[in-house]
Amino acid sequence: VSFLSEDDFLRFMDRFFPRSNNHLLLGRGDDCAILSCPQEICLSTDIFLEGVHFRRSYFSAADIGYKALAVNLSDIAAMAARPLGFALNLMFPEEIKKDFLEEMFAAMSDLAGVYSIPLVGGDLSKAPCLGLDITIWGQSSGRFLTRGGCQPGDILFILGEIGLARAGLMALEENNRDHLQPFPESVQAHLRPQIHLQKAWQLGGQKAVRGLMDVSDGLVQDLPRFTGQDLGTNISLQGQDLHPEVISFAQERGLDPLKFALLGGEDYALLGAAAKEEIPALQTILPELRPIGEVISQPGLFIANQPAKLSGFDHFQKEES
Amino acid sequence: VSFLSEDDFLRFMDRFFPRSNNHLLLGRGDDCAILSCPQEICLSTDIFLEGVHFRRSYFSAADIGYKALAVNLSDIAAMAARPLGFALNLMFPEEIKKDFLEEMFAAMSDLAGVYSIPLVGGDLSKAPCLGLDITIWGQSSGRFLTRGGCQPGDILFILGEIGLARAGLMALEENNRDHLQPFPESVQAHLRPQIHLQKAWQLGGQKAVRGLMDVSDGLVQDLPRFTGQDLGTNISLQGQDLHPEVISFAQERGLDPLKFALLGGEDYALLGAAAKEEIPALQTILPELRPIGEVISQPGLFIANQPAKLSGFDHFQKEES
Repeated sequence: VSFLSEDDFLRFMDRFFPRSNNHLLLGRGDDCAILSCPQEICLSTDIFLEGVHFRRSYFSAADIGYKALAVNLSDIAAMAARPLGFALNLMFPEEIKKDFLEEMFAAMSDLAGVYSIPLVGGDLSKAPCLGLDITIWGQSSGRFLTRGGCQPGDILFILGEIGLARAGLMALEENNRDHLQPFPESVQAHLRPQIHLQKAWQLGGQKAVRGLMDVSDGLVQDLPRFTGQDLGTNISLQGQDLHPEVISFAQERGLDPLKFALLGGEDYALLGAAAKEEIPALQTILPELRPIGEVISQPGLFIANQPAKLSGFDHFQKEES
Repeated sequence: VSFLSEDDFLRFMDRFFPRSNNHLLLGRGDDCAILSCPQEICLSTDIFLEGVHFRRSYFSAADIGYKALAVNLSDIAAMAARPLGFALNLMFPEEIKKDFLEEMFAAMSDLAGVYSIPLVGGDLSKAPCLGLDITIWGQSSGRFLTRGGCQPGDILFILGEIGLARAGLMALEENNRDHLQPFPESVQAHLRPQIHLQKAWQLGGQKAVRGLMDVSDGLVQDLPRFTGQDLGTNISLQGQDLHPEVISFAQERGLDPLKFALLGGEDYALLGAAAKEEIPALQTILPELRPIGEVISQPGLFIANQPAKLSGFDHFQKEES
């Protein structure tokens, strides 16, 4: 790509992202944006980098634009919050073409449009690889749901699939995009993860819900982050409860589907907790809410009361599933 | 570097950046930070990338940590605002050592400490080169000073040096850090730019000041961004008014010092405007305030009433100075 100037790039961005919005008092093109804020906001930032988080060999430009924003929206969902706006730092190598950026921004703009959130500004730089660093912020939809706050005996639940995006990633790495038919929903879960914002707002409205987070590094790693290191989890979820593609993907490779799913990675499912007696009422409101196990006073991960020997995303190589 | 986990990295960061602050209701380690906000905030984000914005051959780890945050603080200064907090996306290649990060974070922490701003969160990724993407936000110190708002006849002024950081960059590129003595203040201006926050707040308190921006791409490019494309600038500043190192650096290379300084780049000086009759009063408050020329109704850049043929940072190669 060559843009004549930063001003030229700003005009290009105007084609995809509106400059006016209730939240945005002064938009792109000054030293800072000026934002109208509620008393409290929640804020998160994520790196989405080629070769680390995606490959151009099987991510389309539109997939990249979608997912860069989606994973940030997932952090807002994890607080049961409503997104207000976002900023983009875009790094790109010389060979990126203008129509690639157009496709990427169109998909990002479509997703931003669903929640009417403005792109308030950002920065632009040449770089050795494509990267999209997004900062996003939001406001409470009633209360922020943080991690933790659960007690032994509480039921842990998820909304969304676990293991599916991991199957998708592995299928894409093995076969690349073009040769791939057998695991369409897995691939979709990796390229275009579903973000559960509306469901998060419903959970935020229920006092029974103790806390919430999004599962981005796999349950094995994220469960102790949620419960705190002083508590543990006893998983009651069974392999047969998983998405059929996860079961068949794991079995084809001689892996245990449940362990495969617990190692997860990039699930972007929501993980929450509530007292056991509150679960039926929550399921009336959110039938997709799926109990996966119980918080226990003994630290560590157990599956059906047996200690589970699993290590998470940092150590994929050494996994024992 | 190898950190055992993201949690391990969070503990490492705790050594440099406090977790508690009035602005920070929930700190690092959850899906989002929760921030206590005024009714309006200003927000900016900047990419600071190895090979594009700095080189490790002549930037120390401490210089990198300092400058990554400093250039963001400059965007807050350019609004006459007070910084509230920042988030960091850190990308680093495998070979970066832990003591490099320690030195880098210590310098960043020192600068953040000057303004008591918390690091509220961020993200971490392996990458082909070192990169620090910072998002920063602030609150008004009375009013936000945006770009523009000036009229023909207004006097343009700067706070800080122009051309000095450019001389420093060129000296470093020519000679590298170790061999360099003749241009110490130039080199300092490039490696450790001074940020004019307090002066910006003083300007914000003066009704006479029409607007403000920070000069990051050189005055040649930034003047029309400030005045708007419909107005022009007649520069009255003279070569002899520049920093002595700028004069000698340019003259040694057969370049006109004034044109060299106007092309600038990374000056991080503040550029403002006020009606002519208000300038003496402003100079009583800020003696360093230096008039550089006048806003004129004819678009374009003029030097002492003659059209100036200069192109800015995007086209360094073609400059005619």
